[in-house]
Amino acid sequence: MQSPSDPISEFELIQRFFKTGADAMNSKSRIGLGIGDDCALIHSSSNEEIAITSDMLVEGRHFFVNANPELLGRKALAVNLSDLAAMGATPLGFTLALALPRADPVWLEAFSKGLFSLAKQFSCTLIGGDTTAGPLTISITAFGTLPKGEAIRRSGAKPGDDIWVSGELGDARLALAALRHEIKLTELELKQIEHRMHQPIPRLELGIQLRGVATAALDISDGLLGDLKHILNQSNVDAQIWIDQLPKSAILLKQDSSIQNQFAACGGDDYEICFTANKDQRSAIEQISKTLNLSLTRIGQTTAMKNDAANIEILTSDGKLLSKDESKALMKSFDHFK
Amino acid sequence: MQSPSDPISEFELIQRFFKTGADAMNSKSRIGLGIGDDCALIHSSSNEEIAITSDMLVEGRHFFVNANPELLGRKALAVNLSDLAAMGATPLGFTLALALPRADPVWLEAFSKGLFSLAKQFSCTLIGGDTTAGPLTISITAFGTLPKGEAIRRSGAKPGDDIWVSGELGDARLALAALRHEIKLTELELKQIEHRMHQPIPRLELGIQLRGVATAALDISDGLLGDLKHILNQSNVDAQIWIDQLPKSAILLKQDSSIQNQFAACGGDDYEICFTANKDQRSAIEQISKTLNLSLTRIGQTTAMKNDAANIEILTSDGKLLSKDESKALMKSFDHFK
Repeated sequence: MQSPSDPISEFELIQRFFKTGADAMNSKSRIGLGIGDDCALIHSSSNEEIAITSDMLVEGRHFFVNANPELLGRKALAVNLSDLAAMGATPLGFTLALALPRADPVWLEAFSKGLFSLAKQFSCTLIGGDTTAGPLTISITAFGTLPKGEAIRRSGAKPGDDIWVSGELGDARLALAALRHEIKLTELELKQIEHRMHQPIPRLELGIQLRGVATAALDISDGLLGDLKHILNQSNVDAQIWIDQLPKSAILLKQDSSIQNQFAACGGDDYEICFTANKDQRSAIEQISKTLNLSLTRIGQTTAMKNDAANIEILTSDGKLLSKDESKALMKSFDHFK
Repeated sequence: MQSPSDPISEFELIQRFFKTGADAMNSKSRIGLGIGDDCALIHSSSNEEIAITSDMLVEGRHFFVNANPELLGRKALAVNLSDLAAMGATPLGFTLALALPRADPVWLEAFSKGLFSLAKQFSCTLIGGDTTAGPLTISITAFGTLPKGEAIRRSGAKPGDDIWVSGELGDARLALAALRHEIKLTELELKQIEHRMHQPIPRLELGIQLRGVATAALDISDGLLGDLKHILNQSNVDAQIWIDQLPKSAILLKQDSSIQNQFAACGGDDYEICFTANKDQRSAIEQISKTLNLSLTRIGQTTAMKNDAANIEILTSDGKLLSKDESKALMKSFDHFK
């Protein structure tokens, strides 16, 4: 909380900072009833499925104490929309449950500004929620729609599929390391990559384009290699990853190669889409990349599963296979409880 | 958190305490895809609407530190299902976002046991969510279905409607007062009412029966009079409430009449349904009461709105109208930020 202010009631708080913004978006949407009743109502249609995802952000864990509330509002929604993107869903609406140490109008105005800026950009309406006093915690549940049967699941990868990733990896982790003074960047360098940590862009257009093209997809929140394992385990395939092919920014490329690899492969907070696709789809995917002006990089391939649990072989550009220990050291993915 | 234990990972935690219980319920339901992907999927149908509600419970605010985790799991879902009930919706599924100081298997086993006991009772499937480290916070978003156009909104009351309430009011507040040592109850008395605080029963069957019968409804979480105002303001009506008619338990009836009235009218945490209905519906409502074996009490009536904001006149059984100050003192409804 950043500034002193008068306490306001929960009801006033919802009216003032959330209902107006939500109502302004409601008129054109399929939301039958938004904020202000026991439940929101969504009109349902027979040719579609509704995709639902929840993410919770906790102060001091997912964001710094005294984080910029406008960026925080934006990011809290972005990480949920990123899950919709990974499914190929079109955003429809979201609920917001918000615990706040106190109802500070200055903080709330900035938070709701950031939240609604992204909500408007992707036509995703706030349809309801809950506010309470408590340690700063933001819990969003987002809804999207999909034509029936077209969701891109984690379980659809086949042996021999290409593995692709959108954008560049590792910059969010690099920015975090710089802000924690673990790594030294110039002010300009930090400025150029900091948005990757604070303002991830949900790849919603990409997700929609990948319907019928990708065999499996997910969004990378806890690091590429750890997250990729979810696809592999659910699809019953192994993978080879070409570590030197991971897409990196010019600023990450200035770091030691061990830092480059660790941050790109396991940094977390990337919110890029990792997906698999049949080799036949290469030109279609290159076309999508051009259309969206978004780099899509082939970083490996799936292989037949050898054991019970998915395995990732990591290869360098000179064809060297990383040892089990080298891979393990690299694959220390982020876990909230470890 | 109640006992020491080994830390377990977020992924193991979900698998062990939530996925199995959820999968067991999934087979027969309309959930296309449950826990384990970026999003859950709900099959949608053209003749219905989907009702959505979110509630967040914070330790020390909505429940005591070291609260019984089994009761807590049950209650966290119950308060959400109560919102579905107030709309007349049939439960379908829910997401759970859970912040935990640490992943304690003993606590989690009890919490998930309580959660799933209620989920099974009302066929409401856990379809996804998020777990993270943080101050104990439980955020649930629940989904229900309704035949198109049959949702019972807050905005439908007409002047001259009866005002009804289910069950008995004030016992949850009385139990809280006893546990806080503000009021002295015998051990037996406390035992007889404590479940009203810890184990509210979502009135789902009632909500479904009230489709087409009630003109407006909501569930009472913050106290009858404060919550009723939401119906009044959204329906543009005033109300008369017969304070001595509020349904009270034998144990509450032993208290001073000022305590009786305050707790029944404004106690909060009741999770009963307050609804309005045309006078023509009285015999239908009495029949519903018999069918469900649930008391339904007429506690007042709506009247034409006199000013801009809804007003509640409070009448005693001898026809005395409470003064503005007396009413105000009574109507201090619970507000999380005041």
